[in-house]
Amino acid sequence: MINIGIIGYGYWGPNLVRNFNSTSGVNVTWVTDIDQDKLKLVKSRYPSTLVSMNTDEAIESSNVDAIAIATPVSSHFELALKALQAGKHVLVEKPMAVNSQECERLIDEADKRKLTLMVDHTFPYTGAVRKIKELVDGGQLGEIYYFDSVRVNLGLFQHDINVIWDLAVHDLSTLDFLFDQKPVEVSATGMRHISGQPENVAYITLFFPNNLIAHIHVNWLSPVKVRKTLIGGSKKMIVYDDLSIDEKVKIYDKGVSMSRDEVNIYKMKVDYRIGEMHSPSIDGKEALKNLTNHFRNCIDKKENPITSSLSGLRVVKTLKAVEKSMENKGRLEKIK
Amino acid sequence: MINIGIIGYGYWGPNLVRNFNSTSGVNVTWVTDIDQDKLKLVKSRYPSTLVSMNTDEAIESSNVDAIAIATPVSSHFELALKALQAGKHVLVEKPMAVNSQECERLIDEADKRKLTLMVDHTFPYTGAVRKIKELVDGGQLGEIYYFDSVRVNLGLFQHDINVIWDLAVHDLSTLDFLFDQKPVEVSATGMRHISGQPENVAYITLFFPNNLIAHIHVNWLSPVKVRKTLIGGSKKMIVYDDLSIDEKVKIYDKGVSMSRDEVNIYKMKVDYRIGEMHSPSIDGKEALKNLTNHFRNCIDKKENPITSSLSGLRVVKTLKAVEKSMENKGRLEKIK
Amino acid sequence: MINIGIIGYGYWGPNLVRNFNSTSGVNVTWVTDIDQDKLKLVKSRYPSTLVSMNTDEAIESSNVDAIAIATPVSSHFELALKALQAGKHVLVEKPMAVNSQECERLIDEADKRKLTLMVDHTFPYTGAVRKIKELVDGGQLGEIYYFDSVRVNLGLFQHDINVIWDLAVHDLSTLDFLFDQKPVEVSATGMRHISGQPENVAYITLFFPNNLIAHIHVNWLSPVKVRKTLIGGSKKMIVYDDLSIDEKVKIYDKGVSMSRDEVNIYKMKVDYRIGEMHSPSIDGKEALKNLTNHFRNCIDKKENPITSSLSGLRVVKTLKAVEKSMENKGRLEKIK
Amino acid sequence: MINIGIIGYGYWGPNLVRNFNSTSGVNVTWVTDIDQDKLKLVKSRYPSTLVSMNTDEAIESSNVDAIAIATPVSSHFELALKALQAGKHVLVEKPMAVNSQECERLIDEADKRKLTLMVDHTFPYTGAVRKIKELVDGGQLGEIYYFDSVRVNLGLFQHDINVIWDLAVHDLSTLDFLFDQKPVEVSATGMRHISGQPENVAYITLFFPNNLIAHIHVNWLSPVKVRKTLIGGSKKMIVYDDLSIDEKVKIYDKGVSMSRDEVNIYKMKVDYRIGEMHSPSIDGKEALKNLTNHFRNCIDKKENPITSSLSGLRVVKTLKAVEKSMENKGRLEKIK
Repeated sequence: MINIGIIGYGYWGPNLVRNFNSTSGVNVTWVTDIDQDKLKLVKSRYPSTLVSMNTDEAIESSNVDAIAIATPVSSHFELALKALQAGKHVLVEKPMAVNSQECERLIDEADKRKLTLMVDHTFPYTGAVRKIKELVDGGQLGEIYYFDSVRVNLGLFQHDINVIWDLAVHDLSTLDFLFDQKPVEVSATGMRHISGQPENVAYITLFFPNNLIAHIHVNWLSPVKVRKTLIGGSKKMIVYDDLSIDEKVKIYDKGVSMSRDEVNIYKMKVDYRIGEMHSPSIDGKEALKNLTNHFRNCIDKKENPITSSLSGLRVVKTLKAVEKSMENKGRLEKIK
Repeated sequence: MINIGIIGYGYWGPNLVRNFNSTSGVNVTWVTDIDQDKLKLVKSRYPSTLVSMNTDEAIESSNVDAIAIATPVSSHFELALKALQAGKHVLVEKPMAVNSQECERLIDEADKRKLTLMVDHTFPYTGAVRKIKELVDGGQLGEIYYFDSVRVNLGLFQHDINVIWDLAVHDLSTLDFLFDQKPVEVSATGMRHISGQPENVAYITLFFPNNLIAHIHVNWLSPVKVRKTLIGGSKKMIVYDDLSIDEKVKIYDKGVSMSRDEVNIYKMKVDYRIGEMHSPSIDGKEALKNLTNHFRNCIDKKENPITSSLSGLRVVKTLKAVEKSMENKGRLEKIK
Repeated sequence: MINIGIIGYGYWGPNLVRNFNSTSGVNVTWVTDIDQDKLKLVKSRYPSTLVSMNTDEAIESSNVDAIAIATPVSSHFELALKALQAGKHVLVEKPMAVNSQECERLIDEADKRKLTLMVDHTFPYTGAVRKIKELVDGGQLGEIYYFDSVRVNLGLFQHDINVIWDLAVHDLSTLDFLFDQKPVEVSATGMRHISGQPENVAYITLFFPNNLIAHIHVNWLSPVKVRKTLIGGSKKMIVYDDLSIDEKVKIYDKGVSMSRDEVNIYKMKVDYRIGEMHSPSIDGKEALKNLTNHFRNCIDKKENPITSSLSGLRVVKTLKAVEKSMENKGRLEKIK
Repeated sequence: MINIGIIGYGYWGPNLVRNFNSTSGVNVTWVTDIDQDKLKLVKSRYPSTLVSMNTDEAIESSNVDAIAIATPVSSHFELALKALQAGKHVLVEKPMAVNSQECERLIDEADKRKLTLMVDHTFPYTGAVRKIKELVDGGQLGEIYYFDSVRVNLGLFQHDINVIWDLAVHDLSTLDFLFDQKPVEVSATGMRHISGQPENVAYITLFFPNNLIAHIHVNWLSPVKVRKTLIGGSKKMIVYDDLSIDEKVKIYDKGVSMSRDEVNIYKMKVDYRIGEMHSPSIDGKEALKNLTNHFRNCIDKKENPITSSLSGLRVVKTLKAVEKSMENKGRLEKIK
């Protein structure tokens, strides 16, 4: 039995508590939050769970083997470091930390102590993204040309982070999971429309070593909610609509092929291929439940985290480069 | 009666002939094309129309008052100049020419001769875009925050121009029509995925003098066809879906407003406003028919072209800056 | 404070317990079920609630003022009668009982004892149906021509009742709420496709005293889930899509009007009117919470139940006539 | 070369002329109409085609081998009979005639003279319906449970026929094409909402010898246009949306199966199967072109008409039974 302490019972914490509590071999022993009312809520729902306004109590408790951190990103580093130093395994909310130095320090600490350090990037645990990964890995899409994601809605404005750190992080972690190659350069633009608030809209282009191009459009000020990704390959193409109930992933047997022009044999002609579409059945299990099961296995069975601390680092490095490019109106930045 | 000669009977020419022929006060007297078979088609449909493989015959004919040019963009300048010099009014297909020097030369020639020179930017003549213009001008959207357009589909690859000159030109001319302010800088990215072919995907961010930001996503390799524009304002927001039959324009009474935080009076709080949506009735008349009527009035009644040669010039200037930025992976370019 | 006992903790019971528990002035004191495991679940969620496998304990408890019945329909009559005879107010799940005699007996008993007897028809408590009621009552739709509902999906087969008693009951109670006039005749058809199971598809036409016609299509064997109602009026028309997140109710300014034919003045011509559509903002509060608040007010403040026992009786009478017609392949049945 | 005369150049006639003229081996030699203006239109489009206001001229012309009749249904019988008696092959617009006696008389005449008599039921010639036929015949849907069609829109009111003869005829001919078994009984309801006009809404249930049930909903007064058919089978289910551009036919691997209940072995349990969906590529060729090609082959190569005069008769018989049932508010009528 792995005993877990959860730091933060705000927006995401309750989901962590609920899922860890229904994961076999796991037990939520502690929940901490700086808000007394949140702790009362925990007590009414889970009478046997210990609560405290002092995070150290959970981190240092002998009744805790692992710590899950669901606090604002600015506090991730300090909390995660303290937990690792106390010998606890750590699951940290996305993004992993505010810069790559923090991420690297945590990775070192976990390595040294042979502790599991995992980042809570949720999408790689969804049935839809796993199905797409299967198709990518199986080569069924052919060469990947582009990944284009739109993730827009009205609100919620965050005070401490902009729309990139809030929304684009999902696409960056999905990209990191799907493709072996990693982005090397970025050009990004964005804007603050509400005085005194962070950027609420951003457009990000990521360049990869080969011809793959990825684009991410995030916006907190859209009248409609959209969660849609197009993936174009030389053989097949995908539309992934995360808001669709029954047809999240559609695979189109469409594309182009080149043939020699019959009139002018020195010229190549583009031909179109328009075949059938199919929408595979998608595992509907809650992503976070897959993640909590996997976190347990990483600790118990020494599995390697799918959303490892290294992927967390790569995502943070990319976010920093995106931000720098956006501040310079699209200036090309290396991701390093 | 205005007699019109039409140069080029390929993709767009037949639409010009059909619409001009059903415009009162206008008569299509000549059609020229370099393809004999196209001319046979003209003859079978319009037995009384004169045809020729020699464009000069139409341009110089005393039986022609105006010339409409529907040929590849590289030939626009030469044909338009010749027509103006022959004293004919000119309607030229979009984009107006291959660079701003050509556009300026044509503008000078038309001014000098007091001839109408109009560009066939079609969207400002659609019921949907006109309705949006009404809302923008009436101030009903409040301050405009962003314009975001997605224009993607599978094909058709053009051999001589890339996806920007083919598709983004529609959004640039729509922007030019809708807003008094004009873009001053651009950052664009794109990619060629088919060997030997021009760029097939591009992402364009336009910066305006104030906080307005415009983004255009064009793609020839999308498995699905999308023609969707989001326009965000401080008061209302619009979704314009050109593929919708009945609800092309939806106006959302949604937005954010700022209020002082009750807990911390030094902090501002973002509030959301979610009201009703309405979709106005849109004039369904064919845009090109509105355009041909307007072209007649520009000649007959000295109306000023809505899609003037100056708007044609601005669009070409922007296309050039976009292209330069794209070649430099998002480098910021002034539009001048 | 009104103390409530809830009989049945299967599919709907948990929703009743949750909503009553968060209704001010109401307290769930007892929950009973014949399944011991269900009661354990209650205890883990609501430690202070009393549970029993014996319904009489709750019904007869001095610590109970009202009973909510969420058991299979065959048991409604016996349980409701017993509760009324014990002097308790009663909320009974839809449909109210298996026939009109049972409904009438319950109505008599409640009247005699001046107790509230209310039926849990949920849709009249949704924001969408309330908005439609407003439009109907305000005369904005004009004369109502038809009400057409499609309510289909895959499953869940009920063993004891057919698709009419399971699904059509929602449309019948919505009709009863929306329109003052009541259906007088019915023609219905249906079919059993799974051997040994009740009818899984049915088509119901209801005739009203005037020209209003209502049609209900229910199906347990549809590959897609649909919850869509068209309402046609002489002035405006509605599409109510209960599965839409943001645009549940769309009001179309469309219709026909008659004019004298100009050619033949003895003939009338049908003209079409196609104006704008608008989608009002809908109150998103959970319907059942509106219902539990209202039930409390019926007891405390002597409000009249919106979904009264008489509406429950009318719906059951209609269901019986529908069933009889369906068994006779569409034979017209009076509803009485 | 087959020479064709076309009677009627109103709504459908121009489509017939255009398609026959582009069918190899066929030539439209005559067009007749009672409206002089329509004939002028023919002349301007097809200068070499002969026109007349007198149908007999075309029917009796030695320059005509076959007659296509696109006039109001009331005139079909007289015109078709005259054409057959003149030794011409006949293609007659749907519905074939106003009653079964007329249909039978035409069938006799054609048989006696060994002439092709074909009905212009268009849907069996569409790529979508042909694909569905393939699936039905291949047994991939399993036993067919139901066919449910919704065909509604605003207008156009016909003066001489009601919504059944205008719209439901499409579904009846599709049913006749798809399934070997034919409906034996019908229950139908409907209503006239516009004074002095025919029924504008109807609901039709068709019973087949086995458990197959078909339902057709047609309406001239709907705010939205819908053309959607659900087909439920024991193995797979289909959604056929004729308004969809890219995904007209979707095949769902969904259904139910029975298994013995583990708790009560005397009871059967319904299990759900939810697998993938796929949407086959559909031949987009114009249906009418397939039909005109086939009509030529029926004459030239003695092929049997897919939409034979017998299918025309069956559809008319069914329409008559539907009408009788509708007039009697759902009374069950035999189709004979």
